[in-house]
Amino acid sequence: MVRASDVVLLPIDDLPTRWYNVRADLPEPLPPPKDPEEGPSRVKALPDMLLGECLRQEASTERWVPIPEEILDLYAHALRPRPLVRARRLEAALKTPAKLYYKTEFLSPTGSHKVNTALAQAWYAKAAGFERLATETGAGQWGTALAYAASLVGLRTTIYWVRAVHDWKVERRAFMRLYGAEVHASPSPATKVGRELLAEDAHHPGSLGIAVSEGLEDALADDKAVYCLGSVLNHVLLHQTIVGLETKRQFESIGVTPDVLVSSLGGGSNFGGFVLPFLPDTFRGRPLRCVAAQSEAAPNLRGEYRYDFADHAGLTPLLKMYTLGHTARMHPIKGDGLRYHAAAPVLSLLRHLGYIDAVAYPADEKHVFARAREFVRTEGFLPAPESAYSVACAIDEALACRESGEAKTIAFNVSGHGFMDMAGYAEVLGL
Amino acid sequence: MVRASDVVLLPIDDLPTRWYNVRADLPEPLPPPKDPEEGPSRVKALPDMLLGECLRQEASTERWVPIPEEILDLYAHALRPRPLVRARRLEAALKTPAKLYYKTEFLSPTGSHKVNTALAQAWYAKAAGFERLATETGAGQWGTALAYAASLVGLRTTIYWVRAVHDWKVERRAFMRLYGAEVHASPSPATKVGRELLAEDAHHPGSLGIAVSEGLEDALADDKAVYCLGSVLNHVLLHQTIVGLETKRQFESIGVTPDVLVSSLGGGSNFGGFVLPFLPDTFRGRPLRCVAAQSEAAPNLRGEYRYDFADHAGLTPLLKMYTLGHTARMHPIKGDGLRYHAAAPVLSLLRHLGYIDAVAYPADEKHVFARAREFVRTEGFLPAPESAYSVACAIDEALACRESGEAKTIAFNVSGHGFMDMAGYAEVLGL
Repeated sequence: MVRASDVVLLPIDDLPTRWYNVRADLPEPLPPPKDPEEGPSRVKALPDMLLGECLRQEASTERWVPIPEEILDLYAHALRPRPLVRARRLEAALKTPAKLYYKTEFLSPTGSHKVNTALAQAWYAKAAGFERLATETGAGQWGTALAYAASLVGLRTTIYWVRAVHDWKVERRAFMRLYGAEVHASPSPATKVGRELLAEDAHHPGSLGIAVSEGLEDALADDKAVYCLGSVLNHVLLHQTIVGLETKRQFESIGVTPDVLVSSLGGGSNFGGFVLPFLPDTFRGRPLRCVAAQSEAAPNLRGEYRYDFADHAGLTPLLKMYTLGHTARMHPIKGDGLRYHAAAPVLSLLRHLGYIDAVAYPADEKHVFARAREFVRTEGFLPAPESAYSVACAIDEALACRESGEAKTIAFNVSGHGFMDMAGYAEVLGL
Repeated sequence: MVRASDVVLLPIDDLPTRWYNVRADLPEPLPPPKDPEEGPSRVKALPDMLLGECLRQEASTERWVPIPEEILDLYAHALRPRPLVRARRLEAALKTPAKLYYKTEFLSPTGSHKVNTALAQAWYAKAAGFERLATETGAGQWGTALAYAASLVGLRTTIYWVRAVHDWKVERRAFMRLYGAEVHASPSPATKVGRELLAEDAHHPGSLGIAVSEGLEDALADDKAVYCLGSVLNHVLLHQTIVGLETKRQFESIGVTPDVLVSSLGGGSNFGGFVLPFLPDTFRGRPLRCVAAQSEAAPNLRGEYRYDFADHAGLTPLLKMYTLGHTARMHPIKGDGLRYHAAAPVLSLLRHLGYIDAVAYPADEKHVFARAREFVRTEGFLPAPESAYSVACAIDEALACRESGEAKTIAFNVSGHGFMDMAGYAEVLGL
């Protein structure tokens, strides 16, 4: 039976008004971005690439960054704060002494946590006088979120979408266009980079690196346009801390402190946003297990900790990250958003310092989707394929508690919904 | 700019604990169900068809029906109460003096308001000792909602789904199966009715009437199974009043009284649930315009007010309704849930007495989807095709206010989300 305290709401007046910047509290300073030994300086080019405010946040070490009132209004309109829910039915089905709580990021208007940074970036761009946003997208969640945010603040959006995904995600493409976005299959005839690649191969499948290059070229060629990025960078993780800050307040409101935090990790914006606000206590000695759920198709936290490019083509500065190598080939999976070669610099440092554990699930995804099915049948909500990794990991942690008899409190983030991804469930589970 | 008061939340402790039964307050008694002149008595067969508690509610004239605590818990778990949102961005785009508010039923776990009665029926069935639910579905929203509700309370579900829809809504079918439901294309080999029809035509496209017959035959043949219905009947509308009761309290909490209520109307469960709780004040003389948004493909409120069957095959008792005739052919539309030949008896009587206005939109749906696009681009949320009719009608009402200069308060229900219906948007709007 659900008790009222099992759905933990935060009144709108308690929406956090500042993002948390973990750089103020890191046990070691974050290694700075640097340039490769050859070619033009990527670091010096950053001011041309990123929004001024985002660039400032990227380098900031101030602990609390005030959220402009207009962005708070946009968060409230996107129905933040989101509930934290005790998974009592799931606990009963698992016969675990553990207490499970999940954050309902899947209530997002476009279906994922990406809106948290999209709204911030769109508003900053509008405030800076830009009229158009350009970006790339892989799985499509980021492109949709930016199209949504741009539409709400009154900007146009141009999206370069990896052709191999663009061509079959017909419905998500229509969704972006419904928001008014201009969507190109990448490589596209709209940029020089794209035209050159199409001249070589008219059916070029594209890559995230190519799409980044197109977005950058587009924005740099137009004074009224600016480029936006949806993961990996410090300012993106900063914006996402709204998720963890809410969750922390929700736990405080019921007098509970989680022992384990779980979420999926591709580039790291969802994982970082959920986990980072809990870390100051842990730096001061409070035990907390943070587990990143990944795919064996892209287990970047098992990679090497070294400087690498953030994109396939090597256009970005070098960042110190756990990486599989920026040209690594990764097996296709339904949780496409987890297919990224490296983890965000901040999370990589925390991993290096021993604050983050990781688990990687087999690339056939049978285990992950079967676990997600247990969640669907007991709790009723449908996780996105990426979020299914978080669900699977939380269930596995709860089953370990059944073995050990420990009544741990496990919190996991369900970062998006799977309504537009049923084909993945159907294929993997044979529905 | 969104102000805190623009997202009207109801604390979980203020979740209404009683459903409202408009029959206690109707200016005229509701004409009772009756039998056709020929054939076996349908009225006497009702106790074999419906759950005891639902049958009792069907005939009840008590004003307030207490909601069992366990159903309240299920509502809370489905994240009720749902927010009421001031559509300030849409108002600005429309340059209307009207104030627009929408109820966010689209936050439902399965994507529609159908869960409100599905949870109630599933719990009553479980409490009565049944182990399985059988039902029919047309568009698929009801089947999904019942599969979800059954899964949460620990029952099995068997769904007979009109073959013409079943065969192409592959993803929604997978969704039902993910909840553990057994899904049959109807007509199916699982019933005598189905086998006979398949013998005549192995590719029979089916109809809602046939699917009803199969669900009934299935449930009647198994002591442990019971049949459930998702619209039209009094008890279904009763359960849906949770939507309007919340909305009414939300308006009271901000000191606002709506002048116009709008929602889409197929069989009437969404419209009734939203509007009925506001009517007692109107029976006492307070002006309130209630507008049902329909399709010209099925403008049942423009039909005749007379006794008719609720199903195509004539298996149900005769109900006094506005009807197009129970064998009427209706043009296919994307808002498939609005394609029903008659309006719920309670709403038909209210229409007859002058309390309900109706508007019917062209069956090409261009106007409706274009209006929904305005909502998507300003408010960011994606309505289901059926809910797009509600959105369109609310916008048209707001534009009429721009003409007349009236600052009316218009409330509309967005009964479901469109994440699984993007193909409809893409086709109609050419995305």
